[in-house]
Amino acid sequence: MKKTRIGIIGAGPSGLAQLRAFEAAKKEGHDVPEIVCIEKQSNWGGMWNYSWRTGVGKYGEPIHGSMYKYLWSNGPKECLEFSDYSFDEHFKKPISSYPPRPVLFDYIQGRIKKNNVRDYIRFDTTARWVSFDEESQKFTVVLDDLKIDKTYEEEFDYLIVASGHFSTPNMPYFKGIENFPGQVMHAHDFRGADPYKDQNLLIIGSSYSAEDIGVQCHKHGAKTVTLSYRSNPIGVNWPDGIKEVPLLTHFENDIAHFKDGTSEKYDAVIMCTGYQHKFPFLPDEMRLKTKNNLYPDNLYKGVFFNDLPRLIYLGMQDQYYTFNMFDTQAWVARDYMMGRYKLPSKKERRYDIDKWLKENDTLQSGNDHVDFQSAYIKDLLAISDYPDFNVDKVGVMFKEWLKDKDENILTYRDKTYQSVVTGTMAETHHTEWMDELDDSKERYLYQNESEEELSDTLEVTSI
Amino acid sequence: MKKTRIGIIGAGPSGLAQLRAFEAAKKEGHDVPEIVCIEKQSNWGGMWNYSWRTGVGKYGEPIHGSMYKYLWSNGPKECLEFSDYSFDEHFKKPISSYPPRPVLFDYIQGRIKKNNVRDYIRFDTTARWVSFDEESQKFTVVLDDLKIDKTYEEEFDYLIVASGHFSTPNMPYFKGIENFPGQVMHAHDFRGADPYKDQNLLIIGSSYSAEDIGVQCHKHGAKTVTLSYRSNPIGVNWPDGIKEVPLLTHFENDIAHFKDGTSEKYDAVIMCTGYQHKFPFLPDEMRLKTKNNLYPDNLYKGVFFNDLPRLIYLGMQDQYYTFNMFDTQAWVARDYMMGRYKLPSKKERRYDIDKWLKENDTLQSGNDHVDFQSAYIKDLLAISDYPDFNVDKVGVMFKEWLKDKDENILTYRDKTYQSVVTGTMAETHHTEWMDELDDSKERYLYQNESEEELSDTLEVTSI
Repeated sequence: MKKTRIGIIGAGPSGLAQLRAFEAAKKEGHDVPEIVCIEKQSNWGGMWNYSWRTGVGKYGEPIHGSMYKYLWSNGPKECLEFSDYSFDEHFKKPISSYPPRPVLFDYIQGRIKKNNVRDYIRFDTTARWVSFDEESQKFTVVLDDLKIDKTYEEEFDYLIVASGHFSTPNMPYFKGIENFPGQVMHAHDFRGADPYKDQNLLIIGSSYSAEDIGVQCHKHGAKTVTLSYRSNPIGVNWPDGIKEVPLLTHFENDIAHFKDGTSEKYDAVIMCTGYQHKFPFLPDEMRLKTKNNLYPDNLYKGVFFNDLPRLIYLGMQDQYYTFNMFDTQAWVARDYMMGRYKLPSKKERRYDIDKWLKENDTLQSGNDHVDFQSAYIKDLLAISDYPDFNVDKVGVMFKEWLKDKDENILTYRDKTYQSVVTGTMAETHHTEWMDELDDSKERYLYQNESEEELSDTLEVTSI
Repeated sequence: MKKTRIGIIGAGPSGLAQLRAFEAAKKEGHDVPEIVCIEKQSNWGGMWNYSWRTGVGKYGEPIHGSMYKYLWSNGPKECLEFSDYSFDEHFKKPISSYPPRPVLFDYIQGRIKKNNVRDYIRFDTTARWVSFDEESQKFTVVLDDLKIDKTYEEEFDYLIVASGHFSTPNMPYFKGIENFPGQVMHAHDFRGADPYKDQNLLIIGSSYSAEDIGVQCHKHGAKTVTLSYRSNPIGVNWPDGIKEVPLLTHFENDIAHFKDGTSEKYDAVIMCTGYQHKFPFLPDEMRLKTKNNLYPDNLYKGVFFNDLPRLIYLGMQDQYYTFNMFDTQAWVARDYMMGRYKLPSKKERRYDIDKWLKENDTLQSGNDHVDFQSAYIKDLLAISDYPDFNVDKVGVMFKEWLKDKDENILTYRDKTYQSVVTGTMAETHHTEWMDELDDSKERYLYQNESEEELSDTLEVTSI
């Protein structure tokens, strides 16, 4: 019998979780399917693989990453820890709760480098077009090898869409924006605060990007940062130099006018106006059509496309939980593809989805959202052998984190949390976040050591 | 018998030329095929349809346009005039030889508004995937209606690829660029000089974009502009404030180092490093694979894909001639599709292509290039009924233009040329180009009139 073939689109945290899930089964002696993972970037890591490029990449494909310099985790690392690969195992020592991007990227890679999953991945390869044959129950995927400019077809029994949903900007039009003389960009193209030093910056939006880019630009020397919100302000205690105003109505050259009748002159505009779920390689009957949402419609257990459950979406939810959520999803998906987990009927799946959607509609506060996603994670943990972790305790940490941010948006990253995987308490970082302008792994991990080494050297020198 | 169906991808100058060519035949009483033209933008005009957006558009598709504010024609309009629709016919009065973008866009639209070609165009629609069936000799094209997020298929007997080749940036890596603190962008994302006021700007490249963006930024107040060339400098007489240096070797933070050992600090980098011919919607056996070139390989008469001449590419050449070249191509393509022009055998076509390629290889100077493309235009004019125009005289104008630029890059746009279509001599513009900071159609066309009106008003007031 021909081996089951599995196609995975994307080698970011979700795609890698899927590869890792199969590796775990293989290590336990199971016969695992044949896997092909394609990745349009030249390296794995998805969003965590920083690129200086904007717009399109080397081969003219839209840039995947929305990552920028000086990005530090905006939630405690204890809330995203892999339960089968702890921070302790990776770093061999406690680290702080809010590491910068290079440190988190290192951690993601650590787990997968232990396995041979790189061999499954075809880099610089993108999916052009997918079709599904009802009779054979197989997907045909047209792949494009960007390096050699060659298209070819592959057949799969299951298709995992793990291409992320923070890559395609949503960018509304505001009257007069075409005549705004300064730089206008979406957060997707933001690569760091440096160009905004001494500038008056207008940020449109009130979600994570707006908050984080605004605070980063403040930290790195923007003169003023104005955040303009559509419905509700972020509403934390902003420091001097950052303020929130109602929605922009229009521009008159470099003057922005707001709903409350005020107006101000700006040097640059960054739109933190969210992202679109976009799957250009899928025919529309296979496309997940959703806004950014804790429970996208039509996905049973948040992953199985209800009209065609051989089509599996990973990580398509709005996210409190991240790496550990992708893991719990990937383990369940793996068990389904390996025949270890059976799906109920389409009608029963629909009923279950509706139950979650109804619940989702009742949520009000950030705490409600946390509880909802915690319940979802538990629902997944119950049906696979992904190592259990204390979801309730993670939920509590998320709520503390929300409170920390409310209290002081500039210092919440100096707080520490305790791992639910190892029980280890995070270290206080050697430098307060507001004073730390260097986000390199070297500086983060070895600052103390090198200062000691340095003082040793100085002592020797001074003899 | 079922009517021949023709698919046109793109409603820019090339696609519109194709629509216009069929309309011309229809007006002469011919029975023309059924035509579907798709355009991913919301309006026609291709590159001439300015968008303030960069990266991806409203629906997440890569932005087509590389157009920027304050763009004035960089060649005499007399060299691109439609021979069946003169500037005189459109503007009803002589205008200068180097109009700004809005004026040229108005001219392009004038001709097609006279016809009902808009009805053929499906806007906000992109081509996802093309296949060709040998047996039926038909193309199946998967289209994506971006507005309603719906894919569907269409069958065509002929497929015209008129999607341009100045949309997908080519952007090389330079060591250290990931740590350059300022803005780094490709010319494709440049939207005007304003953000570079008082800045030290590094431009990489030595072709039209580098020259034009460099000069624009100088005109609009950049402190200094440095152009860095790979092989040969542009080599015109640069004014104070613009200079050319050899190729960048690497960055150290905001310091750029060049091949000649010099180094300098910059605020921003614009890469004018060219574009890729990119056709993601085509399987590679149908893809035109070429660099920017006066005679791309595998295109008979510069348009018919030699392996499959039902696949027609318009405007894929590097361009001296533009609108009038697209016309001459579209007329020949139309005659082929209507059975009025027969192609020779594949072997004979190959022989002809090789003849041109060989000739192309011998070209040295700008004048040689002009002569080569003039000969190509004549080759096309000879086989269709597109209204003849004096190609030799246009060739002479191109050579004068090259000389004008060499002599003074800041004033060449103040020169005037004579139309080969109407014999009309261009007007001297009311304001010298270097002093004209407003590129609006109103200012360009009605400045004199409004001043008169204004003085009338003043007289009345002063009574």
